[in-house]
Amino acid sequence: MNLPRNFFWAQEYFTPWSYTAFAITRILAYRKTPFQEMLIAEMGAYGKGLMLDGHWQSTTLDEFLYHEALVHPALLQVVQGGGIPRRVLVLGGAEGATLREVLRWRSVEQAVMVDIDGEVVEACREHLPEMHQGAFEDPRAQVVIADAFDFLQQTEPVWDVILSDLSDPVEAGPAARLFTQEFFCQIRSKLQPGGAFALQAGPTSPLELEQHTRIVHTLKTVFAAVQPYAIYATTYGGPLGFALAAQAPIPSRPEPEQIDQLLAQHLDPSRGELRFLDGTALLGLYQVPVYVRRAIAAETTVYTLDNPPQVD
Amino acid sequence: MNLPRNFFWAQEYFTPWSYTAFAITRILAYRKTPFQEMLIAEMGAYGKGLMLDGHWQSTTLDEFLYHEALVHPALLQVVQGGGIPRRVLVLGGAEGATLREVLRWRSVEQAVMVDIDGEVVEACREHLPEMHQGAFEDPRAQVVIADAFDFLQQTEPVWDVILSDLSDPVEAGPAARLFTQEFFCQIRSKLQPGGAFALQAGPTSPLELEQHTRIVHTLKTVFAAVQPYAIYATTYGGPLGFALAAQAPIPSRPEPEQIDQLLAQHLDPSRGELRFLDGTALLGLYQVPVYVRRAIAAETTVYTLDNPPQVD
Amino acid sequence: MNLPRNFFWAQEYFTPWSYTAFAITRILAYRKTPFQEMLIAEMGAYGKGLMLDGHWQSTTLDEFLYHEALVHPALLQVVQGGGIPRRVLVLGGAEGATLREVLRWRSVEQAVMVDIDGEVVEACREHLPEMHQGAFEDPRAQVVIADAFDFLQQTEPVWDVILSDLSDPVEAGPAARLFTQEFFCQIRSKLQPGGAFALQAGPTSPLELEQHTRIVHTLKTVFAAVQPYAIYATTYGGPLGFALAAQAPIPSRPEPEQIDQLLAQHLDPSRGELRFLDGTALLGLYQVPVYVRRAIAAETTVYTLDNPPQVD
Amino acid sequence: MNLPRNFFWAQEYFTPWSYTAFAITRILAYRKTPFQEMLIAEMGAYGKGLMLDGHWQSTTLDEFLYHEALVHPALLQVVQGGGIPRRVLVLGGAEGATLREVLRWRSVEQAVMVDIDGEVVEACREHLPEMHQGAFEDPRAQVVIADAFDFLQQTEPVWDVILSDLSDPVEAGPAARLFTQEFFCQIRSKLQPGGAFALQAGPTSPLELEQHTRIVHTLKTVFAAVQPYAIYATTYGGPLGFALAAQAPIPSRPEPEQIDQLLAQHLDPSRGELRFLDGTALLGLYQVPVYVRRAIAAETTVYTLDNPPQVD
Repeated sequence: MNLPRNFFWAQEYFTPWSYTAFAITRILAYRKTPFQEMLIAEMGAYGKGLMLDGHWQSTTLDEFLYHEALVHPALLQVVQGGGIPRRVLVLGGAEGATLREVLRWRSVEQAVMVDIDGEVVEACREHLPEMHQGAFEDPRAQVVIADAFDFLQQTEPVWDVILSDLSDPVEAGPAARLFTQEFFCQIRSKLQPGGAFALQAGPTSPLELEQHTRIVHTLKTVFAAVQPYAIYATTYGGPLGFALAAQAPIPSRPEPEQIDQLLAQHLDPSRGELRFLDGTALLGLYQVPVYVRRAIAAETTVYTLDNPPQVD
Repeated sequence: MNLPRNFFWAQEYFTPWSYTAFAITRILAYRKTPFQEMLIAEMGAYGKGLMLDGHWQSTTLDEFLYHEALVHPALLQVVQGGGIPRRVLVLGGAEGATLREVLRWRSVEQAVMVDIDGEVVEACREHLPEMHQGAFEDPRAQVVIADAFDFLQQTEPVWDVILSDLSDPVEAGPAARLFTQEFFCQIRSKLQPGGAFALQAGPTSPLELEQHTRIVHTLKTVFAAVQPYAIYATTYGGPLGFALAAQAPIPSRPEPEQIDQLLAQHLDPSRGELRFLDGTALLGLYQVPVYVRRAIAAETTVYTLDNPPQVD
Repeated sequence: MNLPRNFFWAQEYFTPWSYTAFAITRILAYRKTPFQEMLIAEMGAYGKGLMLDGHWQSTTLDEFLYHEALVHPALLQVVQGGGIPRRVLVLGGAEGATLREVLRWRSVEQAVMVDIDGEVVEACREHLPEMHQGAFEDPRAQVVIADAFDFLQQTEPVWDVILSDLSDPVEAGPAARLFTQEFFCQIRSKLQPGGAFALQAGPTSPLELEQHTRIVHTLKTVFAAVQPYAIYATTYGGPLGFALAAQAPIPSRPEPEQIDQLLAQHLDPSRGELRFLDGTALLGLYQVPVYVRRAIAAETTVYTLDNPPQVD
Repeated sequence: MNLPRNFFWAQEYFTPWSYTAFAITRILAYRKTPFQEMLIAEMGAYGKGLMLDGHWQSTTLDEFLYHEALVHPALLQVVQGGGIPRRVLVLGGAEGATLREVLRWRSVEQAVMVDIDGEVVEACREHLPEMHQGAFEDPRAQVVIADAFDFLQQTEPVWDVILSDLSDPVEAGPAARLFTQEFFCQIRSKLQPGGAFALQAGPTSPLELEQHTRIVHTLKTVFAAVQPYAIYATTYGGPLGFALAAQAPIPSRPEPEQIDQLLAQHLDPSRGELRFLDGTALLGLYQVPVYVRRAIAAETTVYTLDNPPQVD
């Protein structure tokens, strides 16, 4: 009998009636840290992946979709408004891939990454060079092991861009309060004029839209302009939402050629080409399907410290 | 011990290292027909779904994404070119949902659906009223149980729109030849001037891009204009590609307000509102990410009857 | 990529940390009856199987282990005590395979099967001829569609053997009370002198021993002699316990040669040979491993109508 | 939505149509050694387990079934024949649990374990103290990291008992030749008169009986007496076969009381009680079901170096 190969499978449930399963073909690192359960593994054709508390964060196959979509819209927003992104703060972002994308920008003078879990950052640094590509060693980069909430309270309002690259809005524990009105107010107060904030903002499939619409709605109570968008990375088994927030207007139909020009001007070509984003893709990214727009418009819940995202 | 519920799970492999699993909470119909193995089932929060040969075709949860994306761009292409879509031919489309979307158009006088498997069509008619919503009973609709390849050879060149809603480009058997240059030439020859052809065109995740790029490349050898696009339906576990082909130019940056006006003018409001597509969503749909554009540009393989899509 | 075949898999959890999965290669019958969810399916090398409420009852591959072990020890007990088994009552037993084994005995004049679910019996009769092998048509056999509890209250005390072939002791609903002291008293009162009662009595793996020890302990409060035993059928993913109960002593070290002689004398050779049981196997069956014997000896819980087996 | 917990699941296929899945709740050690892929993990209620090349070797829940069944029948065979087991050779046996059972025997003066994979032995010593219980530190024990085939060729014929505790007869690579006639002849030549050889001998379910019957048949061409037997540990998803081989007769119906007396006399009570085996269990163990006896009797294939067990 010709048996299928025995693998370890990481099953990730999206609903009680659905899950995705990825084969783990080699375990590279595993730890139960004080904050979470971490696995870094080879995954066959998906390359290498990072899993935290049973949720895939990224795989080398398609992390470019996630990290380019998280980073560049926010920095482009600054330059479209006539500014120059010099200081960028990354909340979370253990793999170093968000940092990597930020450091493509020649104007960036300081990129600070604040992650609560030093063990995970260290393991990523060791086992996921494909993701960080040396970003941790860039002289402009700095890693601070701290709670993002605490760090933000103390930091000066010097940031041109703040990026929230957190594991998941709805997990129990410290991450939940990083998706609240109070925290978003803090972020707004730490941004320079003309600054921008972008964050991963929950799935946008018709079945699991609630977190996304609530995060977007909460942002709208804090920022003058909010642009939701989504990507589709196979690793997440469905569309994953983001949001860009700013006090200046966000052009929802950017001119592709102008964006391409800005990217050519600002990105360091020695760091390779973008694989997901350019002017055309950005224009597409900001055109939200009807059902998502309707659900956002109908949303009334604001996440606050008293009413944070719930664990499902 | 508090056990998870025992379900039947339908596992669909995307690679040897990944699959999605959906719970089957009630079996509504099951048949091994001369053409395929069919299951219609309740799937918990996903509603009802149709599975053919182990691949989910659609679920009531998010089939609107697929069917609106397949149908309306093609009919809009006709009216954007100054024509009126009167006759529409659907190849495949057992659930009746493609037909349903076609029949929203008041200008449509005749909608013919050609499906090879009468048993599956009959089972969908009985068990999936949420999908067809009575489309089979519309006096403008006609169902022909026949091989699409044969049907097309005999039909007159009267069609304003042809839609290929086939189960999968790469399955063994009769479907493979419906994704070849020869077949696309047939389709071109049966379209009215100003006509349009749209088809489901394979996944567009970075891992499984080959079928998509080959279908698009093959279309480009036949039609003067080809517009690839993709949707993000959870049911497919990753982005699913389409392509629109025509002899007239396809405006790749449609004006959202103009599209909304055309839809308002042509769609029958008594049939309910679209949930995925409008002018904004169409503009977004046509903006293809960099990695997909690059892969299409680099593609050189043309599917022909001698070199059809291969079973994986 | 060479993909594993997409199957429907029936996952059966034994603990929250373990399940078995069997591929369903063809669905033969599926019903939600007033009593349970039933599936009869082809299962690749396992042949055909019957599943009730998410639990495999039997497969054609190894049901002989279960049914021979349930039936023949009880009838042998009667003849070892000098009696002749003429009337046999089967509680449950939808597949007809318990009936089939009973009807091997030439002395049996009447075999009555009482099953609550006529739809399941009918489906088994149609789709599982390999299991019943015509038992339902035997003139000595009679099927009564009724609740076993009610039936037993009314029946006369004429039975030489009563066999309880119920789906699972711990499911919610009517089956739970069929594993209580009160019900076992009823059974005792309906047996002829020298009669025997056998039943499926829960798993005997070190992890799930509790139901088994409680059933055996409860039986001991009712019957003068109780002999636990177990079989190893792959379909159940672990050892499955039984118990034989009688008022006369049960010889726990039967003489194999004598048993073989009794079987040769009583079984109808035209119905084929036994595949699991003979004198040697019976001797082995009654030798219970240390950990099971110890757990039974330590058990103090008696299942009663007020304290029935709990759903896990 | 109340989601099932996301686990890593180790799926082990038994046929292309069936697998068992165990949750891995904490990874304790993972290595790709030159010989195999090793995982030691916590598994919820199953305790800790050792997996080699995708096959569970043992779990703390029920390894006592395996290790008591492998060890004590062979040593009892020696004392039943009037000998004293002083020197015991274990081939494989990384967990140290086979050694642990051997060392219960007060007569044992030397217990040598020969395992090819020092990394696995080291990891078991560190992470599975529940299994070895200090056996590696016993002054009578000695671990040799070497190929069992080579070791056996060089060793003197001083062994009272040889135990083969190898991962699986049918894996590719060096293990296959350890189940051949030539190797069994080597073993016979290294045993003292009155000595005994026991080994794990493949599954005994009706579906996968072939390896078992071939191993037993091959043994019969080498040894004057061969006694097959089987246990049912949940970890293996079905019954697992063993065989005991000797030149002296093996009493297939041992007297339970006499066995209990021998065990009481020879085992060191300070090492705790046996949980699976005693005289009663041994009597049961040797009574083989009809279908297994028939299949062994019908077997004609002899495993040789030229015709070794095949990988499935």
